[in-house]
Amino acid sequence: MVGSVALDSIETPDSRVENVLGGSAIYFAWAASYFSRVGIVGAIGEDFSEKHLRIFKGRSVDLKGLKRYRGKTFHWSGRYGKNPNDRETLSVCQNVFADFHPDLPAEYRRPDYVFLANIDPDLHLEVLSQVENPKLIAGDTMDIWIETKRESLLKTLKKIDLMILNDSESRQITQENNLIKAARSIISLGPETVIIKKGENGAMLSRKKTLFSIPAYPTEKVVDPTGAGDAFAGAFLGFLAASDSMNEANFRKAVVYGSVVASFCIEDFSLNRLMTVSKQDIMSRAEELRQITQF
Amino acid sequence: MVGSVALDSIETPDSRVENVLGGSAIYFAWAASYFSRVGIVGAIGEDFSEKHLRIFKGRSVDLKGLKRYRGKTFHWSGRYGKNPNDRETLSVCQNVFADFHPDLPAEYRRPDYVFLANIDPDLHLEVLSQVENPKLIAGDTMDIWIETKRESLLKTLKKIDLMILNDSESRQITQENNLIKAARSIISLGPETVIIKKGENGAMLSRKKTLFSIPAYPTEKVVDPTGAGDAFAGAFLGFLAASDSMNEANFRKAVVYGSVVASFCIEDFSLNRLMTVSKQDIMSRAEELRQITQF
Repeated sequence: MVGSVALDSIETPDSRVENVLGGSAIYFAWAASYFSRVGIVGAIGEDFSEKHLRIFKGRSVDLKGLKRYRGKTFHWSGRYGKNPNDRETLSVCQNVFADFHPDLPAEYRRPDYVFLANIDPDLHLEVLSQVENPKLIAGDTMDIWIETKRESLLKTLKKIDLMILNDSESRQITQENNLIKAARSIISLGPETVIIKKGENGAMLSRKKTLFSIPAYPTEKVVDPTGAGDAFAGAFLGFLAASDSMNEANFRKAVVYGSVVASFCIEDFSLNRLMTVSKQDIMSRAEELRQITQF
Repeated sequence: MVGSVALDSIETPDSRVENVLGGSAIYFAWAASYFSRVGIVGAIGEDFSEKHLRIFKGRSVDLKGLKRYRGKTFHWSGRYGKNPNDRETLSVCQNVFADFHPDLPAEYRRPDYVFLANIDPDLHLEVLSQVENPKLIAGDTMDIWIETKRESLLKTLKKIDLMILNDSESRQITQENNLIKAARSIISLGPETVIIKKGENGAMLSRKKTLFSIPAYPTEKVVDPTGAGDAFAGAFLGFLAASDSMNEANFRKAVVYGSVVASFCIEDFSLNRLMTVSKQDIMSRAEELRQITQF
């Protein structure tokens, strides 16, 4: 996976944290490593403490592709409203990420599964030019790239097998309000599979001939939604990579594990909650979700 | 059931209709009559054409409680935006409903199931004073009553077994943004069971110890959402009344049938789509919804 490693400063109505570990690569790798081995390609600055990386000790996360550069680590600062869907970005300092160009270690160049987190789609294309014959390429994006890099994004979409995005991004790309139509419209742009994440309203998996939809795990404790989407993607792809085949049943299970890991992620800042969560905890919530949806 | 019978004028981005058959009683009764016998208590004016009522011919809908008064029928006029959740009320003319006080026919006074549609909660209390020993009292409400008749609404809630409302109404009553907490908070006000309808995001059934949640049937054709909530309630209670017992499994199935009937309702104005829908069509979509949610 290629993505950002960040130090985040986050305000919620009840609390506030400064320079906590964040970034799509961190959330993705933690979540994926419940199921599979995962390698990170990304950049950190001189201010990035080794102790942050020590959390991955004992987990199947490979940091060979995470390089330290002169300068400061990527920093995001944001504020959530009483409704956790209301997010305001206060500042984004690209820092070492400003001139980042992914350079994959030799042993990363024949991956089975590739995840392109929500970074500049031009960097996605650079990554794809360095990998050979992956079984599955999955990607994510965000409003800023849809707005400012539409051409590059459309190029990336043609090369991606599976696109994971949220409801507002799906609407923004396709100009379709109805999410069923939006999913189909994204499929017409390239990906065979689209996952639309809807926050508290669950997630939807669309493929050419099938549709799967689940509500979110009903969590009452929402502290900080940061990273939930990347945790979803990590668990989704981690499970899929560990499973025997990419059939519909495994795609569906992968969505369930993605949702469940995201539901833990939002219960605290940074990886604080996920660091207390075992694979057994994930399985239990997945089983609860099955009970909740059964009729 | 007690509710409004209306002539509606509706604008959508693509179309416009004038004085079409509407009102909570009409949508509820049509939907309930797929499963059970239902009687309407309500008011119509001198302008209400007999041909409107002829649509119920052959269906198990009893109109004894629907009385004609001097004056005009209740009229609602509204406009939907490109996003069908954006609804603007252009005018509400109470007309014969302004002085309406429900007076139940003798044979309606020992009902097994009572539904109080979203009319003034003071009228709900008048209805409840006229019925004896129902097995289940269900109710609905809307923003205007939450805002202007909170005291009466709270009194009604203490007498209601099952409350059906939408997400924004749940938040408005409880001041809780999180819907799981909102549902629990409504239960603490009286009802044992709460159903929160979330439009395109499905529906949630909360009881003291159980939770059930399903996505909406994925319809791509949304013409007019008017009446979807009442159609949901009608199919829900109609099925429940026809089922052998009020256990969790039947509550869940009832939510599914409610969702499915609502998904048909929104595909055209007024009852136009529902008038073409058979019970078999409902069963087919319910089975599709099971396929869509299975993992």
